Amino acid sequence: MRLKSYFPILDWGRRYNRQTLTSDLMAAVIVTIMLIPQSLAYALLAGLPPEVGLYASVLPLVAYAIFGTSSALAVGPVAVVSLMTATAVGRVAAEGSVDYASATIILALLSGVMLTLMGLFRLGFVANFLSHPVISGFITASGLIIATSQVGGLLGIKTEGHALPELLVSIYENVGNINLHTVAVGAVALVLLLWIRLDLKNWLTRFGLSKAVATTIVRAGPVLVVFLTMGWSAGMDLASKGVSLVGDVPQGLPMLALPNVSLDLVQQLALPALIISIVGFVESISVAQTLAAKRRERITPNQELIGLGASNIAAAIGGGYPVTGGFARSVVNFDAGAATPAAGAFTAIGIAGATLLLTPFLAILPKATLAATIVLAVLTLVDFSILKRAWAYSKADFAAVAITMSGTLLLGVETGIALGVGTSILIFLYRSSTPHAAIVGQVPGTEHYRNVKRHKVETVPGMLSIRIDESLYFANARYLEDLVFEQVAANAGITDVVLMCSAVNAIDMSALESLEAIEHRLKDAGVRLHLSEVKGPVMDRLAHTHFLKNLSGGVYLSQHQATTGVLASRVANTTQTAA
Amino acid sequence: MRLKSYFPILDWGRRYNRQTLTSDLMAAVIVTIMLIPQSLAYALLAGLPPEVGLYASVLPLVAYAIFGTSSALAVGPVAVVSLMTATAVGRVAAEGSVDYASATIILALLSGVMLTLMGLFRLGFVANFLSHPVISGFITASGLIIATSQVGGLLGIKTEGHALPELLVSIYENVGNINLHTVAVGAVALVLLLWIRLDLKNWLTRFGLSKAVATTIVRAGPVLVVFLTMGWSAGMDLASKGVSLVGDVPQGLPMLALPNVSLDLVQQLALPALIISIVGFVESISVAQTLAAKRRERITPNQELIGLGASNIAAAIGGGYPVTGGFARSVVNFDAGAATPAAGAFTAIGIAGATLLLTPFLAILPKATLAATIVLAVLTLVDFSILKRAWAYSKADFAAVAITMSGTLLLGVETGIALGVGTSILIFLYRSSTPHAAIVGQVPGTEHYRNVKRHKVETVPGMLSIRIDESLYFANARYLEDLVFEQVAANAGITDVVLMCSAVNAIDMSALESLEAIEHRLKDAGVRLHLSEVKGPVMDRLAHTHFLKNLSGGVYLSQHQATTGVLASRVANTTQTAA
Repeated sequence: MRLKSYFPILDWGRRYNRQTLTSDLMAAVIVTIMLIPQSLAYALLAGLPPEVGLYASVLPLVAYAIFGTSSALAVGPVAVVSLMTATAVGRVAAEGSVDYASATIILALLSGVMLTLMGLFRLGFVANFLSHPVISGFITASGLIIATSQVGGLLGIKTEGHALPELLVSIYENVGNINLHTVAVGAVALVLLLWIRLDLKNWLTRFGLSKAVATTIVRAGPVLVVFLTMGWSAGMDLASKGVSLVGDVPQGLPMLALPNVSLDLVQQLALPALIISIVGFVESISVAQTLAAKRRERITPNQELIGLGASNIAAAIGGGYPVTGGFARSVVNFDAGAATPAAGAFTAIGIAGATLLLTPFLAILPKATLAATIVLAVLTLVDFSILKRAWAYSKADFAAVAITMSGTLLLGVETGIALGVGTSILIFLYRSSTPHAAIVGQVPGTEHYRNVKRHKVETVPGMLSIRIDESLYFANARYLEDLVFEQVAANAGITDVVLMCSAVNAIDMSALESLEAIEHRLKDAGVRLHLSEVKGPVMDRLAHTHFLKNLSGGVYLSQHQATTGVLASRVANTTQTAA
Repeated sequence: MRLKSYFPILDWGRRYNRQTLTSDLMAAVIVTIMLIPQSLAYALLAGLPPEVGLYASVLPLVAYAIFGTSSALAVGPVAVVSLMTATAVGRVAAEGSVDYASATIILALLSGVMLTLMGLFRLGFVANFLSHPVISGFITASGLIIATSQVGGLLGIKTEGHALPELLVSIYENVGNINLHTVAVGAVALVLLLWIRLDLKNWLTRFGLSKAVATTIVRAGPVLVVFLTMGWSAGMDLASKGVSLVGDVPQGLPMLALPNVSLDLVQQLALPALIISIVGFVESISVAQTLAAKRRERITPNQELIGLGASNIAAAIGGGYPVTGGFARSVVNFDAGAATPAAGAFTAIGIAGATLLLTPFLAILPKATLAATIVLAVLTLVDFSILKRAWAYSKADFAAVAITMSGTLLLGVETGIALGVGTSILIFLYRSSTPHAAIVGQVPGTEHYRNVKRHKVETVPGMLSIRIDESLYFANARYLEDLVFEQVAANAGITDVVLMCSAVNAIDMSALESLEAIEHRLKDAGVRLHLSEVKGPVMDRLAHTHFLKNLSGGVYLSQHQATTGVLASRVANTTQTAA
């Protein structure tokens, strides 16, 4: 059982049959055709030779097929992770150098080891700290940076930088070197790709093709554009006209190997690897869960970490660079009917074959074609509506989005995401350190108690019931003290204070000391302190404390019983005094 | 009014009279006598010449008298901040160098500016993030480090380091160089100081002295020990016997000046200055509030920040080093009857006079006397009982204390406190990311609903009421989804799910999207989703959302109304179906 949970293949492998095989093979063919241009393009985005993108689309897919739990997730190079790779590795090595290539491999290895360890230690919850607004803002900003970074490729000029200001300056400075032949190739590729995406399907079905055939042709479209521009390049000898081509690439598949790992490089790449791992995981798990929900399947997040970890280790061994589950390709894989992770393994075989066949011809492919592919792919990532939606719902969420977005655009991906996570955590901490509190009274005709400011309620003279809407912990312990004394000072003649604890989910040691201080000072002033609606887990902890043993008032199951109890004890006191 | 809040002196100054003057003068004399040996000793601890301690006890006291709000707080050099200063400055300059002295001045200046800005921007709440367990653990560990750092001074050997391992190794390596004359001076000073603290008062009152006179003599004790060992040093020519003396110091008071501030140094010292500021502020405000409570006075935390900020800027101008409000001296000031902050200004005059008189004689003072003064002073800081109390109350609090304590001892003060704060925040975030939740039912005979596992309650078939004990935010949004579907899957025949939101103090955008996802999937499964006991502030936010407008069920004021409402709607449905 335990073995099976770490090797999901042992589970679905036993149920494998002819029908799932056919579905998986069909999906694999379609995804292979889609992945080829994307893999080439994203490698270029990562600052690597295009063939590395193909290498990164072979072994990782096999590894995921063994360890992954999603039947539809298609792993491989993706846009955002490629940009993050370029940013991280660009700091430690010069693009195009041997050091650069080996640093990307170390980055993949580190990321793989981290993801695997996080999976084994069940640390998947860490990903929850990337809130939805932060991720949305980050992806949109990354998409903009990526699109801008490809402008150079489309214009035939060289640009530098991984954040918007540098890129824009770099484009502006080189605007005089624009190569019009490159612009022509880029423009044709862009227009064709856009037309293929928006209109080709309708056009084909109008010519009588079935929807399924039309969809397949549309998906093969980008590959056709690659072949078309290759032909253009060869026929018109674009190289002699200054158009930047991919150039000679080593034939065949790389030898399996691990790079020499230097401790120094590991230290420099550790933090970027961690950020890439978490961002990649969040992107991947969101896609996997969305698709799983459609088929009522279940994804195991911690096992997904292991699956992605294995994929990245495999990427390192196979000469690739960091990979994760991609949104567009997974949807295609799903739509094409992929029934098990085996579809990924078949895709890997397809890509391996394509690598062997394609590499001799890649030399003549204009880089502008790949730039156009990237621009088309990432424009779907850009979505500013999150800003509007966040603004409408909560200014705090808006702040998190805006800071993530502007931080990413202006300061780069790593700083941007760190700022976003930091901001959302700080907002949460700040809010919980200055909690909302309400004085409550009884809703007439019920045993329910609500805020006196919002509801028409009845209160008992001399009895102050305060509901604190937050767990009591170190950051708001002092706040609680101030609050109680302000309220007692503002309401003369108070004899009983009830803390209604229905929203208090925990009381830590600092808060316990504040409660003791409150109890002490109230006792000095002749005021009794009561508690009501204390939750089970909180009560368990308080049970053996000095505070509870010496409490001047009572502890009541409900606020209503507290009211009744306080009134009854007053009557008893009066009777005693009278007697 | 506004001016008065920034210059509390304008307030209490108007009420100043002969009586308060007498009280303040009395207190000033006693605190001056107490401060002299402490100031000398703490400067030594900070790696500075002893007279710097005196300089740091003049202008800062005047500044606090103008800007501070506590009538009893006595600012000046304190043990923990001195250790932190030595740690921070020891990294950027060699002890005894001119650079070292100017770095401490820059540190005081930075700390002063930071505290003032925090006060002006009302950021006093930041101090709340130093929880009580963390501060207790930190102070105890600091006390141990300080005491160990003085062992060298008591044995006449040179030691190095600001964390326990280095110090112990350093003592061990130099144990052969022990100077027995120094040991004798140190031992006599220690025994005398201990005897003065523990027994002198009883002894004096037994000889017929009044309690007040006895108390004053006890407080002057440490100064007497200073004079005694000075005499010993001069009479026996201890210098020739290898006893380390304070040595020649510049006479008079330093010129008022600000150091040349280098940007590089500012960058290196900024973070330590921030930590020193916050730790100093927390120490100071705790003392001030404790003493204010005894006299039913009020402390304004944000104005206290300005007061301490002004003190540290004054320390920088007057050639001192970072200062804050000290516990022992403030208590003495309070007991001696200090009525207004003017007592501090008078103390400053006393110390200035002492500086002029004392400096010529300081040369012959054995450093071992100052080491003994420090050891005695810091042993009161060491209190391991916090470990036991935290363990008994909560393992999470214990973890925070233990990590702070061991981090401080082994890795130094800055790392220790950072680890402590980081641990307590992480524990809080982790806990709130995996919240407690309960299925609730009606407590018979009441309208109160509690956990089915803890109370004998009644539930309605087909209706699942879940109370989530946490605000819903990004870190637990996914958790909530899983929880609801697990529960629905585990309980067959569910037609209505009620989320009881009495403990939900906020719903952020990520959580809203999770709620939408839950609503969607429940609707698909033919299950209605209801909300109950949604708080006002949460409802305000939800009011205009898509989620609430499309909610399949109702929103009920109380859980009891939700139960009644669901039952009523079922009857209505049945009637409709029947009709």
